[in-house]
Amino acid sequence: MYSVSVRDHVMIAHSLKGDVFGPAQRLHGATYVVDVEFRRPDLDSDGIVVDIGRASDALRGVLAELNYRNLDDVPEFVARNTTTEFLARTVFDRLLAAIRGGDLGPGAGALESMRVTLHESHIASASFDGPVRKPS
Amino acid sequence: MYSVSVRDHVMIAHSLKGDVFGPAQRLHGATYVVDVEFRRPDLDSDGIVVDIGRASDALRGVLAELNYRNLDDVPEFVARNTTTEFLARTVFDRLLAAIRGGDLGPGAGALESMRVTLHESHIASASFDGPVRKPS
Amino acid sequence: MYSVSVRDHVMIAHSLKGDVFGPAQRLHGATYVVDVEFRRPDLDSDGIVVDIGRASDALRGVLAELNYRNLDDVPEFVARNTTTEFLARTVFDRLLAAIRGGDLGPGAGALESMRVTLHESHIASASFDGPVRKPS
Amino acid sequence: MYSVSVRDHVMIAHSLKGDVFGPAQRLHGATYVVDVEFRRPDLDSDGIVVDIGRASDALRGVLAELNYRNLDDVPEFVARNTTTEFLARTVFDRLLAAIRGGDLGPGAGALESMRVTLHESHIASASFDGPVRKPS
Amino acid sequence: MYSVSVRDHVMIAHSLKGDVFGPAQRLHGATYVVDVEFRRPDLDSDGIVVDIGRASDALRGVLAELNYRNLDDVPEFVARNTTTEFLARTVFDRLLAAIRGGDLGPGAGALESMRVTLHESHIASASFDGPVRKPS
Amino acid sequence: MYSVSVRDHVMIAHSLKGDVFGPAQRLHGATYVVDVEFRRPDLDSDGIVVDIGRASDALRGVLAELNYRNLDDVPEFVARNTTTEFLARTVFDRLLAAIRGGDLGPGAGALESMRVTLHESHIASASFDGPVRKPS
Repeated sequence: MYSVSVRDHVMIAHSLKGDVFGPAQRLHGATYVVDVEFRRPDLDSDGIVVDIGRASDALRGVLAELNYRNLDDVPEFVARNTTTEFLARTVFDRLLAAIRGGDLGPGAGALESMRVTLHESHIASASFDGPVRKPS
Repeated sequence: MYSVSVRDHVMIAHSLKGDVFGPAQRLHGATYVVDVEFRRPDLDSDGIVVDIGRASDALRGVLAELNYRNLDDVPEFVARNTTTEFLARTVFDRLLAAIRGGDLGPGAGALESMRVTLHESHIASASFDGPVRKPS
Repeated sequence: MYSVSVRDHVMIAHSLKGDVFGPAQRLHGATYVVDVEFRRPDLDSDGIVVDIGRASDALRGVLAELNYRNLDDVPEFVARNTTTEFLARTVFDRLLAAIRGGDLGPGAGALESMRVTLHESHIASASFDGPVRKPS
Repeated sequence: MYSVSVRDHVMIAHSLKGDVFGPAQRLHGATYVVDVEFRRPDLDSDGIVVDIGRASDALRGVLAELNYRNLDDVPEFVARNTTTEFLARTVFDRLLAAIRGGDLGPGAGALESMRVTLHESHIASASFDGPVRKPS
Repeated sequence: MYSVSVRDHVMIAHSLKGDVFGPAQRLHGATYVVDVEFRRPDLDSDGIVVDIGRASDALRGVLAELNYRNLDDVPEFVARNTTTEFLARTVFDRLLAAIRGGDLGPGAGALESMRVTLHESHIASASFDGPVRKPS
Repeated sequence: MYSVSVRDHVMIAHSLKGDVFGPAQRLHGATYVVDVEFRRPDLDSDGIVVDIGRASDALRGVLAELNYRNLDDVPEFVARNTTTEFLARTVFDRLLAAIRGGDLGPGAGALESMRVTLHESHIASASFDGPVRKPS
């Protein structure tokens, strides 16, 4: 299996609901350094997994929707806990939509799986890893 | 698959038995920077993989039993080579016992697998990756 | 010159006032990974720059006052822009007070200077570096 | 599953053919920081995955063939795009030959799989991950 | 003293002239991960050292002139050895020109000094550190 | 001022004497990832600060004397606390002797200062920074 990974980051505010979060129930924030790994079993005719320029642009676009925002005010997140795990999945789903929408080029259709990792500090991170290919 | 990772470290002395270890057969030591990745297919009702505070505490507890020790003097390791690989497995097994003992909370029962990585320098590391769920 | 450095982190929300900040004028947040370097020209009789345990505790205490907070709501910051640079200085000043208050032990009186660095992402950081010794 | 990872690096010049590469079609270069992860389900009688000294030497040997070279002038690469993905596979294949040739010792026959990752900058990397065992 | 640092990277080919360089006399290449630290004794009225957006853009502009190039073909470098040290100075000088040309905004006139570091691998880097203020 | 930095590592056992060290009074160990920064105001005729190959070899030689040792058994350290700070100074002094003995080549006589940093974990390090030039 081949893979290519790109890195970017996003800075957000939010609060988390539930006793398990302790002081993180207060409004606070985070920088997430985001790594996305794209995987496929074979390279395309150019010798690549994915157009890394388009992949970086797609990631930047997905993160731009979140960047410099208070996630507590984002309508679609209102009923949700925007944990690092949840946000990893959110970035995954939006990148998946970008791939299916053609934003990463036609070759991206051959991607098999993808992993999104959000590093919230030097000692903690969360990720979501899942398939990219449409179920046939 | 979702995952959450936490990091801590431990400083130990030991020696290794066997020609393959060359000068590491002498009593020396290491700092191990330890990453533990916890995985499960779905998030709990709080939107998390595991209570990261409890997970960090459990890791700290497991490492505290080893920290600032000469592993050559630890009775249960006397007949063993405390290689980085072996210690990754030791940390894994002890965390597994902590999970099964309830130290990471009831939700930790949904964890599917775990990976423990020990970085022994900027150029070398070892890990053990295995299932968490009890065989049914 | 000798130095010792310790690392911790803090997660906050805030907004910044001024056109120069663009979208960072909105309420957002950051993880700051904080490095503090303590310097002195000679080691003490134990062979150290500072009691690293006490230094780490002092840093944790200073960061705890900021951690999981919306800095826009902190009274002493209301009229200020809590930029990374400003926060580096804030941490510096509070650590200086801790040193002078004896929290790092009597030996900390021999510290000559200190540098506080806040990493706000994998590509940006800010620091404040200044003297520790009281002017005589 | 156990694993051991080692790190080294290589510095090369090359150009890439195809519009997708934009300015990287010009002759330029890269430092690749190379991580190799060796995996096997059980440890050998010394308690290790592989002789890390031999593994590091084998990696160094493989990289030495590429180091300080213009890959555009290497006969076996002439018709190929030496993308980071392709080079990860090249390092993989050559390490596999070294393993099968006995360079990592007889115990290396128990290796199950291997992952080669080339970091081309602080924000991008590529890898190839595949089986080591001969098909029986 | 306050400082702000930004990071970017550049990928180039070159060769080095002189026996001291051994195999690096051959045409090869490098990724340089570039850190620039800007310093001044006091913050401006916005609470910053420099407009980090403009500083990042200026660095990107300077690196764009070098990126994806064979430095052996760049006329102004023909008679020079483009060592990591030399390139750190080159980036420094060009950023200094950008500062004096107003590209970092009028506030950049208060910068006192600057440090440019080029990381050529995980084990080696070079830097140039010098004053920014015009001699009066 | 120009500088060049190289990185290597060393793995040792030791114990520390004094209540301030708490559990580190027990025999334990550490991996030190060692960075050495060499500085001089001008480059030599090859365009370098120091022959990086020779500098790396000198550092490796100095670390080899300590590597895989129990420092409690090293005669010259018997009456000393081998703290990270003390070891940073030890590496500094031995590199200084190597420089003065000609091991880094004749050009190393132009070095002005040097900084040795020992990273003992992902959250702590110590360094010694001092002049290289002989007092005239």
